[in-house]
Amino acid sequence: MKIVRTVEEVRQAVRTWKAEGKTIGLVPTMGYLHEGHKSLIDRAVAENDHVVVSIFVNPIQFGPAEDLETYPRDLEKDSELCQTAGASLIFHPDPSQMYSPTFSSFINMSTLTGGLCGKTRPSHFQGVCTVVGKLFNIVEPNKAYFGQKDAQQLAVIRHMVEDLNFNLEIVGCPIVREADGLAKSSRNSYLSKDERKAALVLSQSLAIAQKMINEGERDTGKLTLAMTKHIENEPLAKIDYIEFVDWKTLEPVGLIDRPVLNAIAVYIGKTRLIDNHIYE
Amino acid sequence: MKIVRTVEEVRQAVRTWKAEGKTIGLVPTMGYLHEGHKSLIDRAVAENDHVVVSIFVNPIQFGPAEDLETYPRDLEKDSELCQTAGASLIFHPDPSQMYSPTFSSFINMSTLTGGLCGKTRPSHFQGVCTVVGKLFNIVEPNKAYFGQKDAQQLAVIRHMVEDLNFNLEIVGCPIVREADGLAKSSRNSYLSKDERKAALVLSQSLAIAQKMINEGERDTGKLTLAMTKHIENEPLAKIDYIEFVDWKTLEPVGLIDRPVLNAIAVYIGKTRLIDNHIYE
Repeated sequence: MKIVRTVEEVRQAVRTWKAEGKTIGLVPTMGYLHEGHKSLIDRAVAENDHVVVSIFVNPIQFGPAEDLETYPRDLEKDSELCQTAGASLIFHPDPSQMYSPTFSSFINMSTLTGGLCGKTRPSHFQGVCTVVGKLFNIVEPNKAYFGQKDAQQLAVIRHMVEDLNFNLEIVGCPIVREADGLAKSSRNSYLSKDERKAALVLSQSLAIAQKMINEGERDTGKLTLAMTKHIENEPLAKIDYIEFVDWKTLEPVGLIDRPVLNAIAVYIGKTRLIDNHIYE
Repeated sequence: MKIVRTVEEVRQAVRTWKAEGKTIGLVPTMGYLHEGHKSLIDRAVAENDHVVVSIFVNPIQFGPAEDLETYPRDLEKDSELCQTAGASLIFHPDPSQMYSPTFSSFINMSTLTGGLCGKTRPSHFQGVCTVVGKLFNIVEPNKAYFGQKDAQQLAVIRHMVEDLNFNLEIVGCPIVREADGLAKSSRNSYLSKDERKAALVLSQSLAIAQKMINEGERDTGKLTLAMTKHIENEPLAKIDYIEFVDWKTLEPVGLIDRPVLNAIAVYIGKTRLIDNHIYE
Protein backbone atom coordinates (compact mmCIF):
# COMPACT_ATOMS: atom_id res chain seq x y z
CA MET A 1 0.00 0.00 0.00
CA LYS A 2 1.25 3.46 -0.96
CA ILE A 3 0.55 6.82 0.71
CA VAL A 4 0.59 9.70 -1.76
CA ARG A 5 -0.01 13.42 -1.32
CA THR A 6 -0.48 14.76 -4.84
CA VAL A 7 -3.25 14.52 -7.42
CA GLU A 8 -0.68 13.55 -10.06
CA GLU A 9 0.47 10.50 -8.05
CA VAL A 10 -3.13 9.30 -7.69
CA ARG A 11 -3.68 9.81 -11.43
CA GLN A 12 -0.57 7.74 -12.22
CA ALA A 13 -1.80 4.81 -10.13
CA VAL A 14 -5.31 5.10 -11.57
CA ARG A 15 -3.98 5.22 -15.16
CA THR A 16 -2.01 2.00 -14.57
CA TRP A 17 -4.98 0.22 -13.02
CA LYS A 18 -7.41 1.36 -15.75
CA ALA A 19 -4.99 0.25 -18.47
CA GLU A 20 -5.02 -3.21 -16.84
CA GLY A 21 -8.82 -3.20 -16.84
CA LYS A 22 -8.99 -3.13 -13.02
CA THR A 23 -11.92 -1.68 -11.07
CA ILE A 24 -11.45 0.99 -8.42
CA GLY A 25 -13.34 1.65 -5.20
CA LEU A 26 -13.06 4.98 -3.39
CA VAL A 27 -13.61 5.49 0.34
CA PRO A 28 -13.53 9.23 1.10
CA THR A 29 -12.75 9.94 4.78
CA MET A 30 -11.47 12.65 7.09
CA GLY A 31 -9.23 10.09 8.81
CA TYR A 32 -9.05 9.02 12.46
CA LEU A 33 -10.52 5.82 11.14
CA HIS A 34 -12.72 3.56 13.25
CA GLU A 35 -14.74 0.37 12.75
CA GLY A 36 -17.31 2.34 10.73
CA HIS A 37 -14.70 3.38 8.18
CA LYS A 38 -13.24 -0.13 8.26
CA SER A 39 -16.61 -1.57 7.23
CA LEU A 40 -16.59 0.75 4.19
CA ILE A 41 -13.05 -0.25 3.24
CA ASP A 42 -13.84 -3.97 3.75
CA ARG A 43 -16.83 -3.70 1.45
CA ALA A 44 -14.83 -1.73 -1.13
CA VAL A 45 -12.03 -4.32 -1.04
CA ALA A 46 -14.58 -7.10 -1.54
CA GLU A 47 -16.16 -5.36 -4.54
CA ASN A 48 -13.18 -3.82 -6.40
CA ASP A 49 -9.70 -4.74 -7.65
CA HIS A 50 -8.16 -1.66 -6.02
CA VAL A 51 -9.30 0.58 -3.19
CA VAL A 52 -8.27 4.19 -2.67
CA VAL A 53 -8.89 5.66 0.79
CA SER A 54 -8.73 9.45 0.86
CA ILE A 55 -7.81 10.97 4.21
CA PHE A 56 -8.43 14.70 4.13
CA VAL A 57 -9.85 16.98 6.79
CA ASN A 58 -11.63 19.19 4.28
CA PRO A 59 -11.45 22.80 5.53
CA ILE A 60 -14.32 24.10 3.37
CA GLN A 61 -16.92 21.85 5.00
CA PHE A 62 -16.23 23.29 8.46
CA GLY A 63 -17.97 26.48 9.61
CA PRO A 64 -15.95 29.30 11.22
CA ALA A 65 -16.92 28.23 14.77
CA GLU A 66 -16.46 24.50 14.14
CA ASP A 67 -13.74 22.02 15.09
CA LEU A 68 -11.44 22.14 12.03
CA GLU A 69 -8.29 22.79 14.08
CA THR A 70 -9.01 20.25 16.79
CA TYR A 71 -10.47 17.53 14.56
CA PRO A 72 -8.58 14.36 15.59
CA ARG A 73 -5.81 13.09 13.29
CA ASP A 74 -3.66 9.93 13.42
CA LEU A 75 -2.17 9.03 10.04
CA GLU A 76 -0.01 6.23 11.42
CA LYS A 77 -2.92 4.32 12.95
CA ASP A 78 -5.05 5.08 9.86
CA SER A 79 -2.36 3.63 7.56
CA GLU A 80 -2.21 0.42 9.57
CA LEU A 81 -5.98 0.02 9.38
CA CYS A 82 -6.02 0.64 5.60
CA GLN A 83 -3.08 -1.70 5.01
CA THR A 84 -4.65 -4.49 7.08
CA ALA A 85 -8.01 -4.02 5.36
CA GLY A 86 -6.36 -4.40 1.93
CA ALA A 87 -6.49 -0.87 0.49
CA SER A 88 -4.08 -0.16 -2.39
CA LEU A 89 -3.54 3.55 -1.87
CA ILE A 90 -4.06 6.31 0.67
CA PHE A 91 -4.52 9.79 -0.80
CA HIS A 92 -3.55 12.23 1.94
CA PRO A 93 -3.25 15.68 0.35
CA ASP A 94 -2.32 18.96 1.98
CA PRO A 95 -5.10 21.55 1.84
CA SER A 96 -2.99 23.52 -0.67
CA GLN A 97 -3.00 20.50 -3.00
CA MET A 98 -6.80 20.54 -3.04
CA TYR A 99 -7.39 24.30 -2.93
CA SER A 100 -5.07 26.61 -4.85
CA PRO A 101 -4.94 30.29 -3.82
CA THR A 102 -7.28 31.14 -6.74
CA PHE A 103 -9.75 28.32 -6.01
CA SER A 104 -13.31 29.56 -6.58
CA SER A 105 -15.45 26.73 -8.06
CA PHE A 106 -18.10 25.08 -5.92
CA ILE A 107 -20.81 22.47 -6.28
CA ASN A 108 -24.08 23.64 -4.71
CA MET A 109 -27.42 22.00 -4.18
CA SER A 110 -30.61 24.02 -3.83
CA THR A 111 -32.62 21.15 -2.30
CA LEU A 112 -31.78 18.51 0.35
CA THR A 113 -29.14 20.71 2.03
CA GLY A 114 -31.27 23.32 3.83
CA GLY A 115 -32.72 21.14 6.61
CA LEU A 116 -31.25 18.75 9.21
CA CYS A 117 -27.51 19.47 9.58
CA GLY A 118 -27.71 22.13 6.85
CA LYS A 119 -29.77 24.35 9.14
CA THR A 120 -26.93 24.98 11.58
CA ARG A 121 -24.11 24.27 9.11
CA PRO A 122 -25.06 26.50 6.15
CA SER A 123 -21.98 25.97 3.93
CA HIS A 124 -21.24 22.40 5.08
CA PHE A 125 -22.79 20.55 2.14
CA GLN A 126 -21.29 22.92 -0.41
CA GLY A 127 -17.94 21.93 1.08
CA VAL A 128 -18.84 18.23 1.04
CA CYS A 129 -20.17 18.24 -2.55
CA THR A 130 -17.19 20.19 -3.82
CA VAL A 131 -14.53 17.99 -2.23
CA VAL A 132 -16.35 14.77 -3.14
CA GLY A 133 -16.77 15.98 -6.75
CA LYS A 134 -13.03 16.71 -6.83
CA LEU A 135 -12.20 13.27 -5.40
CA PHE A 136 -14.46 11.60 -7.98
CA ASN A 137 -12.59 13.44 -10.76
CA ILE A 138 -9.18 12.61 -9.29
CA VAL A 139 -9.75 8.91 -8.57
CA GLU A 140 -12.40 8.17 -11.26
CA PRO A 141 -13.68 5.21 -9.23
CA ASN A 142 -16.25 2.62 -10.33
CA LYS A 143 -17.85 2.76 -6.90
CA ALA A 144 -17.62 5.10 -3.92
CA TYR A 145 -18.56 4.14 -0.37
CA PHE A 146 -20.32 6.32 2.21
CA GLY A 147 -21.62 5.50 5.66
CA GLN A 148 -25.32 5.74 6.38
CA LYS A 149 -24.38 7.38 9.66
CA ASP A 150 -24.09 10.64 7.70
CA ALA A 151 -27.48 9.99 6.13
CA GLN A 152 -28.05 13.50 4.79
CA GLN A 153 -24.59 13.46 3.24
CA LEU A 154 -25.36 10.10 1.61
CA ALA A 155 -28.65 11.43 0.16
CA VAL A 156 -26.94 14.63 -1.03
CA ILE A 157 -24.07 12.75 -2.71
CA ARG A 158 -26.48 10.33 -4.42
CA HIS A 159 -28.48 13.31 -5.71
CA MET A 160 -25.34 15.13 -6.90
CA VAL A 161 -24.16 12.03 -8.78
CA GLU A 162 -27.54 11.75 -10.49
CA ASP A 163 -27.80 15.47 -11.32
CA LEU A 164 -24.24 15.97 -12.56
CA ASN A 165 -23.91 12.54 -14.24
CA PHE A 166 -20.84 11.37 -12.34
CA ASN A 167 -20.14 7.95 -13.88
CA LEU A 168 -19.97 5.78 -10.77
CA GLU A 169 -22.10 3.92 -8.27
CA ILE A 170 -22.66 5.20 -4.73
CA VAL A 171 -22.76 2.45 -2.12
CA GLY A 172 -24.32 3.31 1.25
CA CYS A 173 -23.16 1.16 4.18
CA PRO A 174 -24.93 0.50 7.50
CA ILE A 175 -24.09 2.33 10.72
CA VAL A 176 -21.53 0.55 12.91
CA ARG A 177 -22.19 0.85 16.66
CA GLU A 178 -20.36 0.31 19.93
CA ALA A 179 -21.58 -2.65 22.02
CA ASP A 180 -23.87 -0.32 24.00
CA GLY A 181 -25.41 1.23 20.88
CA LEU A 182 -23.47 4.49 20.40
CA ALA A 183 -22.81 5.07 16.69
CA LYS A 184 -19.07 5.00 15.95
CA SER A 185 -17.71 8.46 15.19
CA SER A 186 -14.31 10.12 15.18
CA ARG A 187 -15.89 12.84 17.32
CA ASN A 188 -16.64 10.30 20.11
CA SER A 189 -13.00 10.84 21.10
CA TYR A 190 -14.01 14.29 22.38
CA LEU A 191 -16.32 12.81 25.06
CA SER A 192 -15.46 12.69 28.78
CA LYS A 193 -16.45 9.56 30.73
CA ASP A 194 -19.73 11.10 31.86
CA GLU A 195 -20.47 12.46 28.40
CA ARG A 196 -19.75 9.05 26.86
CA LYS A 197 -22.48 7.61 29.09
CA ALA A 198 -24.87 10.50 28.34
CA ALA A 199 -24.31 10.04 24.58
CA LEU A 200 -26.37 6.86 24.74
CA VAL A 201 -29.54 8.99 24.61
CA LEU A 202 -29.08 9.27 20.85
CA SER A 203 -29.36 5.57 20.02
CA GLN A 204 -31.83 5.03 22.87
CA SER A 205 -34.23 7.66 21.58
CA LEU A 206 -34.05 6.18 18.06
CA ALA A 207 -34.85 2.78 19.59
CA ILE A 208 -37.85 4.27 21.43
CA ALA A 209 -39.25 5.52 18.11
CA GLN A 210 -38.56 2.15 16.47
CA LYS A 211 -40.46 0.34 19.17
CA MET A 212 -43.44 2.72 18.88
CA ILE A 213 -43.46 2.31 15.09
CA ASN A 214 -43.28 -1.48 15.43
CA GLU A 215 -46.30 -1.22 17.71
CA GLY A 216 -48.22 0.73 15.05
CA GLU A 217 -47.55 4.42 15.77
CA ARG A 218 -47.28 6.45 12.51
CA ASP A 219 -47.62 10.05 13.74
CA THR A 220 -44.18 11.69 13.62
CA GLY A 221 -45.32 14.41 16.04
CA LYS A 222 -45.93 11.82 18.75
CA LEU A 223 -42.71 9.98 17.91
CA THR A 224 -40.73 13.23 18.10
CA LEU A 225 -42.31 14.05 21.46
CA ALA A 226 -41.31 10.70 22.97
CA MET A 227 -37.75 11.06 21.68
CA THR A 228 -37.52 14.66 22.94
CA LYS A 229 -38.68 13.63 26.41
CA HIS A 230 -36.07 10.89 26.64
CA ILE A 231 -33.20 13.13 25.57
CA GLU A 232 -34.29 16.06 27.74
CA ASN A 233 -34.06 13.75 30.78
CA GLU A 234 -30.28 13.75 30.28
CA PRO A 235 -28.77 16.98 31.74
CA LEU A 236 -25.60 16.79 29.58
CA ALA A 237 -27.65 16.57 26.35
CA LYS A 238 -29.02 19.46 24.27
CA ILE A 239 -31.12 18.69 21.21
CA ASP A 240 -30.10 20.32 17.91
CA TYR A 241 -32.82 18.57 15.90
CA ILE A 242 -35.07 15.50 15.87
CA GLU A 243 -36.58 15.00 12.41
CA PHE A 244 -38.59 12.56 10.37
CA VAL A 245 -38.02 13.26 6.65
CA ASP A 246 -38.72 11.61 3.31
CA TRP A 247 -35.61 9.49 2.61
CA LYS A 248 -35.31 10.77 -0.95
CA THR A 249 -36.29 14.45 -0.78
CA LEU A 250 -35.39 15.01 2.92
CA GLU A 251 -38.64 16.99 3.29
CA PRO A 252 -40.33 16.61 6.71
CA VAL A 253 -43.19 14.09 6.87
CA GLY A 254 -46.14 13.95 9.27
CA LEU A 255 -46.70 10.22 8.91
CA ILE A 256 -44.49 7.17 8.46
CA ASP A 257 -46.12 6.24 5.14
CA ARG A 258 -43.09 5.96 2.81
CA PRO A 259 -39.32 5.42 3.18
CA VAL A 260 -38.48 7.77 6.06
CA LEU A 261 -35.22 8.91 7.65
CA ASN A 262 -35.39 9.55 11.39
CA ALA A 263 -32.35 11.76 11.95
CA ILE A 264 -31.16 13.45 15.11
CA ALA A 265 -28.35 15.76 16.18
CA VAL A 266 -27.64 16.27 19.87
CA TYR A 267 -24.97 18.23 21.71
CA ILE A 268 -23.37 16.17 24.49
CA GLY A 269 -21.49 18.87 26.35
CA LYS A 270 -19.71 20.74 23.56
CA THR A 271 -19.62 17.77 21.20
CA ARG A 272 -22.28 17.60 18.50
CA LEU A 273 -23.21 13.99 17.66
CA ILE A 274 -25.58 12.65 15.00
CA ASP A 275 -27.38 9.36 14.58
CA ASN A 276 -30.31 8.06 12.55
CA HIS A 277 -32.50 5.18 11.53
CA ILE A 278 -33.99 4.62 8.08
CA TYR A 279 -37.44 3.06 7.68
CA GLU A 280 -37.31 1.59 4.14
CA MET B 1 -22.06 8.91 -37.53
CA LYS B 2 -24.83 8.30 -35.03
CA ILE B 3 -27.25 10.80 -33.47
CA VAL B 4 -28.31 9.81 -29.95
CA ARG B 5 -30.58 11.49 -27.43
CA THR B 6 -29.88 9.72 -24.15
CA VAL B 7 -26.99 9.72 -21.69
CA GLU B 8 -27.02 5.93 -21.70
CA GLU B 9 -26.44 5.74 -25.48
CA VAL B 10 -23.46 8.10 -25.20
CA ARG B 11 -22.06 6.01 -22.33
CA GLN B 12 -22.38 2.82 -24.42
CA ALA B 13 -20.40 4.33 -27.29
CA VAL B 14 -17.80 5.78 -24.90
CA ARG B 15 -17.41 2.43 -23.08
CA THR B 16 -16.73 0.67 -26.39
CA TRP B 17 -14.20 3.29 -27.49
CA LYS B 18 -12.40 3.32 -24.13
CA ALA B 19 -12.22 -0.50 -24.10
CA GLU B 20 -10.47 -0.24 -27.50
CA GLY B 21 -8.03 2.34 -26.09
CA LYS B 22 -9.37 5.10 -28.34
CA THR B 23 -9.19 8.80 -27.47
CA ILE B 24 -12.27 11.02 -27.43
CA GLY B 25 -12.69 14.69 -28.27
CA LEU B 26 -15.78 16.63 -27.19
CA VAL B 27 -17.15 19.73 -28.91
CA PRO B 28 -20.00 21.17 -26.82
CA THR B 29 -22.33 23.37 -28.89
CA MET B 30 -25.83 24.82 -28.92
CA GLY B 31 -26.18 23.83 -32.59
CA TYR B 32 -26.92 25.99 -35.64
CA LEU B 33 -23.34 25.22 -36.50
CA HIS B 34 -21.18 27.58 -38.56
CA GLU B 35 -17.56 27.75 -39.71
CA GLY B 36 -16.50 28.60 -36.15
CA HIS B 37 -17.92 25.33 -34.80
CA LYS B 38 -16.53 23.51 -37.85
CA SER B 39 -13.02 24.69 -36.96
CA LEU B 40 -13.47 23.16 -33.47
CA ILE B 41 -14.72 19.86 -34.90
CA ASP B 42 -11.91 19.77 -37.48
CA ARG B 43 -9.31 20.27 -34.78
CA ALA B 44 -10.98 17.64 -32.55
CA VAL B 45 -11.05 15.13 -35.44
CA ALA B 46 -7.37 15.78 -36.12
CA GLU B 47 -6.40 15.21 -32.47
CA ASN B 48 -8.67 12.32 -31.35
CA ASP B 49 -9.82 8.89 -32.53
CA HIS B 50 -13.48 9.79 -31.98
CA VAL B 51 -15.31 13.10 -31.74
CA VAL B 52 -18.59 13.70 -29.95
CA VAL B 53 -20.46 16.90 -30.82
CA SER B 54 -23.12 17.82 -28.29
CA ILE B 55 -25.98 19.93 -29.65
CA PHE B 56 -28.06 21.25 -26.79
CA VAL B 57 -29.66 24.65 -26.33
CA ASN B 58 -29.09 24.69 -22.59
CA PRO B 59 -32.08 26.37 -20.91
CA ILE B 60 -30.31 27.13 -17.62
CA GLN B 61 -27.73 29.42 -19.23
CA PHE B 62 -30.44 31.74 -20.61
CA GLY B 63 -31.88 34.53 -18.49
CA PRO B 64 -35.67 35.02 -18.26
CA ALA B 65 -35.64 37.85 -20.85
CA GLU B 66 -33.20 36.16 -23.22
CA ASP B 67 -33.63 34.34 -26.53
CA LEU B 68 -34.05 30.69 -25.41
CA GLU B 69 -37.26 30.17 -27.40
CA THR B 70 -36.10 31.89 -30.56
CA TYR B 71 -32.51 30.60 -30.52
CA PRO B 72 -31.97 29.22 -34.06
CA ARG B 73 -32.05 25.44 -34.54
CA ASP B 74 -31.33 23.25 -37.61
CA LEU B 75 -30.44 19.69 -36.68
CA GLU B 76 -30.46 18.47 -40.28
CA LYS B 77 -27.87 20.98 -41.47
CA ASP B 78 -25.87 20.46 -38.26
CA SER B 79 -25.79 16.69 -38.84
CA GLU B 80 -24.47 17.15 -42.36
CA LEU B 81 -21.71 19.45 -41.13
CA CYS B 82 -20.70 17.01 -38.33
CA GLN B 83 -20.80 14.01 -40.68
CA THR B 84 -18.69 15.77 -43.30
CA ALA B 85 -16.20 16.95 -40.67
CA GLY B 86 -15.74 13.38 -39.45
CA ALA B 87 -17.51 13.38 -36.06
CA SER B 88 -18.46 9.94 -34.68
CA LEU B 89 -21.48 10.92 -32.62
CA ILE B 90 -23.94 13.75 -32.08
CA PHE B 91 -25.44 13.94 -28.59
CA HIS B 92 -28.71 15.82 -28.94
CA PRO B 93 -30.64 15.41 -25.69
CA ASP B 94 -34.04 16.78 -24.77
CA PRO B 95 -33.95 19.22 -21.86
CA SER B 96 -35.71 16.57 -19.73
CA GLN B 97 -32.81 14.17 -20.38
CA MET B 98 -30.39 16.71 -18.92
CA TYR B 99 -32.58 18.16 -16.16
CA SER B 100 -34.90 15.87 -14.22
CA PRO B 101 -37.83 17.45 -12.34
CA THR B 102 -35.83 17.21 -9.08
CA PHE B 103 -32.61 18.64 -10.58
CA SER B 104 -30.94 20.97 -8.06
CA SER B 105 -27.12 20.64 -8.32
CA PHE B 106 -25.11 23.46 -9.82
CA ILE B 107 -21.49 24.38 -10.38
CA ASN B 108 -20.77 27.96 -9.34
CA MET B 109 -17.71 30.15 -9.56
CA SER B 110 -17.14 33.06 -7.19
CA THR B 111 -14.50 34.73 -9.40
CA LEU B 112 -14.24 35.32 -13.19
CA THR B 113 -18.03 35.28 -13.67
CA GLY B 114 -19.07 38.64 -12.18
CA GLY B 115 -17.72 40.97 -14.88
CA LEU B 116 -18.00 41.16 -18.68
CA CYS B 117 -21.02 39.11 -19.81
CA GLY B 118 -21.69 38.03 -16.21
CA LYS B 119 -22.69 41.59 -15.32
CA THR B 120 -25.85 41.54 -17.43
CA ARG B 121 -26.26 37.73 -17.42
CA PRO B 122 -26.08 36.88 -13.69
CA SER B 123 -26.86 33.15 -13.85
CA HIS B 124 -25.37 32.53 -17.29
CA PHE B 125 -22.05 31.05 -16.19
CA GLN B 126 -23.65 28.89 -13.52
CA GLY B 127 -25.68 27.40 -16.37
CA VAL B 128 -22.61 27.02 -18.58
CA CYS B 129 -20.43 25.44 -15.86
CA THR B 130 -23.19 23.07 -14.84
CA VAL B 131 -24.00 21.80 -18.32
CA VAL B 132 -20.34 21.56 -19.32
CA GLY B 133 -19.54 19.65 -16.10
CA LYS B 134 -22.40 17.27 -16.92
CA LEU B 135 -21.15 16.81 -20.49
CA PHE B 136 -17.63 16.11 -19.22
CA ASN B 137 -19.04 13.41 -16.92
CA ILE B 138 -21.21 11.91 -19.66
CA VAL B 139 -18.62 11.84 -22.46
CA GLU B 140 -15.43 11.56 -20.33
CA PRO B 141 -13.37 13.05 -23.15
CA ASN B 142 -9.59 13.34 -23.33
CA LYS B 143 -9.92 16.84 -24.77
CA ALA B 144 -12.74 19.36 -25.07
CA TYR B 145 -12.81 22.20 -27.58
CA PHE B 146 -14.10 25.73 -27.00
CA GLY B 147 -13.99 28.79 -29.24
CA GLN B 148 -12.04 31.84 -28.14
CA LYS B 149 -14.95 33.93 -29.40
CA ASP B 150 -16.60 33.20 -26.02
CA ALA B 151 -13.41 34.22 -24.24
CA GLN B 152 -14.90 34.60 -20.77
CA GLN B 153 -16.52 31.18 -21.12
CA LEU B 154 -13.16 29.69 -22.16
CA ALA B 155 -11.42 31.24 -19.12
CA VAL B 156 -14.23 30.10 -16.79
CA ILE B 157 -14.17 26.52 -18.12
CA ARG B 158 -10.38 26.32 -17.85
CA HIS B 159 -10.62 27.53 -14.25
CA MET B 160 -13.41 25.08 -13.41
CA VAL B 161 -11.40 22.17 -14.84
CA GLU B 162 -8.40 23.20 -12.73
CA ASP B 163 -10.43 23.76 -9.53
CA LEU B 164 -12.59 20.63 -9.74
CA ASN B 165 -9.88 18.35 -11.20
CA PHE B 166 -11.75 17.31 -14.32
CA ASN B 167 -9.35 14.88 -16.01
CA LEU B 168 -9.15 16.35 -19.49
CA GLU B 169 -7.46 19.03 -21.54
CA ILE B 170 -9.26 22.20 -22.63
CA VAL B 171 -8.33 23.37 -26.12
CA GLY B 172 -9.15 26.97 -27.03
CA CYS B 173 -9.55 27.67 -30.75
CA PRO B 174 -9.18 30.99 -32.62
CA ILE B 175 -12.14 33.13 -33.65
CA VAL B 176 -13.40 32.46 -37.19
CA ARG B 177 -14.55 35.57 -39.04
CA GLU B 178 -16.57 36.47 -42.12
CA ALA B 179 -14.58 37.97 -45.02
CA ASP B 180 -15.39 41.49 -43.77
CA GLY B 181 -14.27 40.76 -40.22
CA LEU B 182 -17.54 39.98 -38.37
CA ALA B 183 -16.99 37.13 -35.91
CA LYS B 184 -19.07 34.07 -36.88
CA SER B 185 -22.01 33.55 -34.51
CA SER B 186 -25.30 31.68 -34.63
CA ARG B 187 -26.91 34.94 -33.48
CA ASN B 188 -25.75 36.72 -36.68
CA SER B 189 -28.81 35.08 -38.26
CA TYR B 190 -30.95 37.56 -36.29
CA LEU B 191 -29.46 40.58 -38.13
CA SER B 192 -31.31 42.55 -40.84
CA LYS B 193 -29.28 43.74 -43.84
CA ASP B 194 -28.62 47.14 -42.26
CA GLU B 195 -27.77 45.60 -38.90
CA ARG B 196 -25.38 43.16 -40.59
CA LYS B 197 -23.50 46.16 -41.95
CA ALA B 198 -23.61 47.99 -38.61
CA ALA B 199 -22.27 44.89 -36.81
CA LEU B 200 -18.87 45.55 -38.35
CA VAL B 201 -18.22 48.16 -35.64
CA LEU B 202 -17.31 45.31 -33.28
CA SER B 203 -14.34 43.94 -35.21
CA GLN B 204 -13.44 47.44 -36.45
CA SER B 205 -13.19 48.85 -32.93
CA LEU B 206 -11.02 45.89 -31.85
CA ALA B 207 -8.78 46.60 -34.86
CA ILE B 208 -8.51 50.28 -33.86
CA ALA B 209 -7.25 49.25 -30.41
CA GLN B 210 -4.83 46.76 -31.98
CA LYS B 211 -3.38 49.44 -34.24
CA MET B 212 -2.94 51.85 -31.30
CA ILE B 213 -1.27 49.13 -29.23
CA ASN B 214 1.03 48.23 -32.14
CA GLU B 215 1.98 51.90 -32.24
CA GLY B 216 2.87 51.85 -28.54
CA GLU B 217 -0.28 52.88 -26.67
CA ARG B 218 -0.64 50.98 -23.35
CA ASP B 219 -3.29 53.01 -21.48
CA THR B 220 -6.55 51.04 -21.53
CA GLY B 221 -8.53 54.20 -20.73
CA LYS B 222 -7.39 55.82 -23.98
CA LEU B 223 -7.94 52.61 -25.92
CA THR B 224 -11.46 52.25 -24.52
CA LEU B 225 -12.23 55.85 -25.44
CA ALA B 226 -11.17 55.35 -29.07
CA MET B 227 -13.24 52.15 -29.33
CA THR B 228 -16.26 53.82 -27.72
CA LYS B 229 -16.09 56.74 -30.15
CA HIS B 230 -16.02 54.43 -33.15
CA ILE B 231 -18.98 52.34 -31.99
CA GLU B 232 -21.06 55.36 -30.92
CA ASN B 233 -20.78 56.68 -34.46
CA GLU B 234 -23.03 53.82 -35.58
CA PRO B 235 -26.70 54.67 -34.80
CA LEU B 236 -27.81 50.98 -34.75
CA ALA B 237 -25.16 50.06 -32.15
CA LYS B 238 -25.45 50.33 -28.36
CA ILE B 239 -22.45 49.40 -26.20
CA ASP B 240 -22.99 46.85 -23.42
CA TYR B 241 -19.33 46.82 -22.38
CA ILE B 242 -15.81 47.50 -23.65
CA GLU B 243 -13.24 46.00 -21.30
CA PHE B 244 -9.54 45.27 -20.99
CA VAL B 245 -9.01 42.50 -18.41
CA ASP B 246 -6.23 40.21 -17.22
CA TRP B 247 -6.54 37.10 -19.41
CA LYS B 248 -6.30 34.76 -16.43
CA THR B 249 -8.21 36.50 -13.61
CA LEU B 250 -10.51 38.60 -15.85
CA GLU B 251 -9.88 41.55 -13.50
CA PRO B 252 -9.81 44.98 -15.25
CA VAL B 253 -6.32 46.33 -16.05
CA GLY B 254 -5.22 49.93 -16.54
CA LEU B 255 -2.22 49.08 -18.70
CA ILE B 256 -1.42 46.49 -21.35
CA ASP B 257 1.48 45.03 -19.33
CA ARG B 258 0.57 41.30 -19.20
CA PRO B 259 -1.64 38.91 -21.21
CA VAL B 260 -4.83 40.95 -21.68
CA LEU B 261 -8.27 40.17 -23.08
CA ASN B 262 -9.96 43.06 -24.88
CA ALA B 263 -13.61 41.98 -24.82
CA ILE B 264 -16.68 43.82 -26.05
CA ALA B 265 -20.43 43.27 -26.15
CA VAL B 266 -22.59 45.49 -28.35
CA TYR B 267 -26.29 45.49 -29.12
CA ILE B 268 -26.97 45.79 -32.84
CA GLY B 269 -30.67 46.55 -32.82
CA LYS B 270 -32.05 43.91 -30.46
CA THR B 271 -29.22 41.43 -31.08
CA ARG B 272 -26.41 41.31 -28.56
CA LEU B 273 -23.09 40.40 -30.18
CA ILE B 274 -19.68 39.79 -28.58
CA ASP B 275 -16.17 39.84 -29.94
CA ASN B 276 -12.66 40.06 -28.51
CA HIS B 277 -8.94 40.07 -29.07
CA ILE B 278 -6.34 38.52 -26.78
CA TYR B 279 -2.92 40.13 -26.32
CA GLU B 280 -0.72 37.21 -25.20
